[in-house]
Amino acid sequence: MRAGIIVIGNEVLSGKVTEINANWLLAQFHELGVPVMKVSIIPDEIPIIAREMRHFSEQFDVVITTGGVGPTHDDMTYAAAAEAFGCPLTYNDEMARVILNWAPDATPDGYLRMALLPQGTELVYDGGMPFPVTRLKNLYIMPGEPTVLRAKFSAIRELFRQEPYTLRRVWLHLDEGSIAPRLDALQKAHPDVEIGSYPVYQDPHYQVLVTFEAKDREAVQRVYESFVDGLAPEQIWKMA
Amino acid sequence: MRAGIIVIGNEVLSGKVTEINANWLLAQFHELGVPVMKVSIIPDEIPIIAREMRHFSEQFDVVITTGGVGPTHDDMTYAAAAEAFGCPLTYNDEMARVILNWAPDATPDGYLRMALLPQGTELVYDGGMPFPVTRLKNLYIMPGEPTVLRAKFSAIRELFRQEPYTLRRVWLHLDEGSIAPRLDALQKAHPDVEIGSYPVYQDPHYQVLVTFEAKDREAVQRVYESFVDGLAPEQIWKMA
Repeated sequence: MRAGIIVIGNEVLSGKVTEINANWLLAQFHELGVPVMKVSIIPDEIPIIAREMRHFSEQFDVVITTGGVGPTHDDMTYAAAAEAFGCPLTYNDEMARVILNWAPDATPDGYLRMALLPQGTELVYDGGMPFPVTRLKNLYIMPGEPTVLRAKFSAIRELFRQEPYTLRRVWLHLDEGSIAPRLDALQKAHPDVEIGSYPVYQDPHYQVLVTFEAKDREAVQRVYESFVDGLAPEQIWKMA
Repeated sequence: MRAGIIVIGNEVLSGKVTEINANWLLAQFHELGVPVMKVSIIPDEIPIIAREMRHFSEQFDVVITTGGVGPTHDDMTYAAAAEAFGCPLTYNDEMARVILNWAPDATPDGYLRMALLPQGTELVYDGGMPFPVTRLKNLYIMPGEPTVLRAKFSAIRELFRQEPYTLRRVWLHLDEGSIAPRLDALQKAHPDVEIGSYPVYQDPHYQVLVTFEAKDREAVQRVYESFVDGLAPEQIWKMA
């Protein structure tokens, strides 16, 4: 299973709202053992959103979109999904009932707009959510407001769970240049364990973090130990 | 001038490193009056990086890439740029001198790898930086480490400055559904001023933030005032 995330909203691209959903979803998917292959942040423009949705839907097994599902003129995500997959927007009676239950004075040009969904949209309930998650094909269409996004994703996350990753890490008192040749040789010898090297320049505790990651726990442990065994104790700040 | 941002790194997609560069760059470009049209976060895979670079380079006037420029095996950004534009990697003597000045014991399989640049890469110096920014065509290729990225972008940011945006904001004690019809009519009547509506669900102070933005200061002020004039004082929490 491979995932993709599409963040929709001019307010993010213009820096008016700080984007925090992508990092949160990335950590969630990683904990679920699902690799995320791409994140796109795109504007409130129907042709752009529709193209990105089609592209992600074809390439990845699961796609999460965030943003653009409210009742105002700048909420275009459902219209874009309708265009992306040729599914006309129609009133979803079940969604209308949910909305009227939550906001009894909702009007067709106010909150009831949120019941205008692409034909074929499935309402996914789980974990006692009052509001369903909307799914169209392999797209889970979620709001951008972080508290609601988190509640909705948390309610359905177990649908996506795969075999977990194993991650080992070592933080070093060494510069990245000096370990580059060893890491390069290790990576070539063990292509199935992903080795990462992340320098920092203003941390008093360490200069570079090296990570070893894969789904094969034994393989990770072997490569990690073979790297750490070649280090002197004073070169290591921390291991995990 | 339209900009795009490409964030490169498996460590971001796997949630091992929290991405903070995109939000920072988005705020910078907004302050510079430059619209950012897209942000992509992509993995350390040369064909994927190369395709995204070509795509962004064709569509946008300025492209910033972050990540993948260090000396280790997982640093693939220059190789991807070489592939993207058919510019073979060659040793850049000036870059090699800069590296040796900073790390006198740099070796060809360590830090000196960072001098292997696509042919045609220009070294951009400004603001007394010891390390140059590398530019290839309209791509500014920057590191992912946040302190270095910020120093480098800050040194060259004035190259991009355009006419500023004017932004007016009002935070409301109203739900989004009830203002949707008015905002919709206003946006239709004034297509040149971008109106945004951003609800929050767990803030004690307000329920929705409405924004009015454009480069035409008078137009923004007109639309903003016409919206605010229709509100009762008790409906407004804050204006800016």
